Amino acid sequence: MKKRVSIKDIAEAAGVSTALVSYVLNNKEKEARVGKEIAIKIRDIAKQLNYQPNQLAKSLKSGKSYTIGLIVADISNPFFANIARTIEDEAKKNNYTVIFGSSDENAEKSKDLIDVLVNRQVDGFIIAPTENSQEQIKDLESRGIPLVLIDRYFPGISTNYVATDNFEASVDVVNHLVENGHKRVGLVTYDSDLINIKERQRGYEEALRKHGISVNPSMIAKIRFGNIEEDIPARINALLEGDKPVDSIFFATNTLALNGLKHINTLDYKVPQDLGIVCFDEGDAFDFFYSPLTHVYQPLFEVASKAVNVLIEQINDTQSPKKELIIASELIIRKSSGA
Amino acid sequence: MKKRVSIKDIAEAAGVSTALVSYVLNNKEKEARVGKEIAIKIRDIAKQLNYQPNQLAKSLKSGKSYTIGLIVADISNPFFANIARTIEDEAKKNNYTVIFGSSDENAEKSKDLIDVLVNRQVDGFIIAPTENSQEQIKDLESRGIPLVLIDRYFPGISTNYVATDNFEASVDVVNHLVENGHKRVGLVTYDSDLINIKERQRGYEEALRKHGISVNPSMIAKIRFGNIEEDIPARINALLEGDKPVDSIFFATNTLALNGLKHINTLDYKVPQDLGIVCFDEGDAFDFFYSPLTHVYQPLFEVASKAVNVLIEQINDTQSPKKELIIASELIIRKSSGA
Repeated sequence: MKKRVSIKDIAEAAGVSTALVSYVLNNKEKEARVGKEIAIKIRDIAKQLNYQPNQLAKSLKSGKSYTIGLIVADISNPFFANIARTIEDEAKKNNYTVIFGSSDENAEKSKDLIDVLVNRQVDGFIIAPTENSQEQIKDLESRGIPLVLIDRYFPGISTNYVATDNFEASVDVVNHLVENGHKRVGLVTYDSDLINIKERQRGYEEALRKHGISVNPSMIAKIRFGNIEEDIPARINALLEGDKPVDSIFFATNTLALNGLKHINTLDYKVPQDLGIVCFDEGDAFDFFYSPLTHVYQPLFEVASKAVNVLIEQINDTQSPKKELIIASELIIRKSSGA
Repeated sequence: MKKRVSIKDIAEAAGVSTALVSYVLNNKEKEARVGKEIAIKIRDIAKQLNYQPNQLAKSLKSGKSYTIGLIVADISNPFFANIARTIEDEAKKNNYTVIFGSSDENAEKSKDLIDVLVNRQVDGFIIAPTENSQEQIKDLESRGIPLVLIDRYFPGISTNYVATDNFEASVDVVNHLVENGHKRVGLVTYDSDLINIKERQRGYEEALRKHGISVNPSMIAKIRFGNIEEDIPARINALLEGDKPVDSIFFATNTLALNGLKHINTLDYKVPQDLGIVCFDEGDAFDFFYSPLTHVYQPLFEVASKAVNVLIEQINDTQSPKKELIIASELIIRKSSGA
């Protein structure tokens, strides 16, 4: 690599002191002390030499890098890709640049990324935390690094978060299915301790009980992260083939729905006549499914923009009180639930 | 923020010199000089104090940060989200962490991201360059920063790149359509100077000519980035409604196909009976389209893994010769092209 152009190089080329160059390029307050002509000359030379201010040195001084570290669970999931995009747009409006990484639902990878980004002096983090990353979050908190969790959070850890109301959304889904004549509602979800996933199951169970329907564990299919392609066909077949087959399925995430519907398409079931379907989130994929999907719409834009705003508040004042924001989702009723 | 634990803190706690601590924690060669017991004690204390090595200081010394900066054109596009995911996986195998950003097909945003990542001492870049970012690429090259372009490149600029053969893939598409009875093949592409887009049009035109079919500009719909939702219905209607309507459409990207098919679904056309369709790339979305899509399969995994390997080669030896890799794509024939 060529040597970076330094303030010293500019000072030599301009025939002035390094202090003077620094006043002009780094310090708005002190720039007034420098003659206008000299200031213009210094700026011109800096431009000619393609001087890049050393952001790290600047960060150390101002305490700010105007950079946000974003860690999503899986960037190839459209849910997170769209959140990332919206966070970028929101951050840009506030003159922040976002650099991000994907933890792949893997706590070790998450830790690597946090270390890399901390060492690169991001001003703060927005994180969709993976399972078993509690210690990483506690560690960031204890070091006073501004932080907002999105989509998931850990009930035991005091931290900022912005999430949607997974419990209420799932209650709405089951109410809707039951009120439209479905009596045996199956749930396809992940085998996970993540709060968003657990809350969806809790909402499902609570709503069934309210309708006087007892919860049947054999109607809850728990899919392993990373084993979707293997688990989905087996577990869906089990839901459909028992002596008391389900009459409808609630898919707890868009990835589960995508894989589940691909499998159901290979079987002799028509949606919604033979099987009612509701899923969490939308996806381009579902636009072409023959039976438009009833789904939970999570307001991604609101989650992303609130997360950015809460984070910037914390960056500007680390003493500002913690924000725990739960945003309502909306049930969008289409054809697939038989309504 | 709390003060970072330093080598000095550890030295004090262990009752040894800072040099000794540095030998143990930072310098494998010199560690041999330190007694085994002392080395273990130092490591224990570092762990208790939650010492985080200062990667930046380490980078400055070793000249390496084991971090790759990745800039994609739009992270909410599944094509780039999947490339990002694959690059992450490949980098991880080589002990590199990837931090990335999305330029949103915007040269200014691309420049911001490059500056941020250069200042954060990434060892090198993988970039899917936007239009009008030539100067940014030249600048990185002239500063000797290791760099590999993917998906797109600039013919006038000597740099490493890994791309697919867009020309040949498009020739294959048109050959296939013409050989299956289509005489009036429309092209829906972007209004763009990006090489990958231009090469797709060149392949389309060249193949038509080889079949003795003259190229008709009114059968080429150029859509503006950022105006897709407005342009697609208008331009597709124009292709279908003239006195010589097209009998088939070649969509030059997956985003164009996704939007185009949504519009065609609202019209009274059946695929492939009324209209043959071929598109570039696949997408989860197309799995549910009633007429499975004939499409160009770009080997993303190969592009991503080659890009990572070429970059690491360059990082390890900036004098190693430039690599310009063009990888063949494959035409996957399904139902939508009427074959």
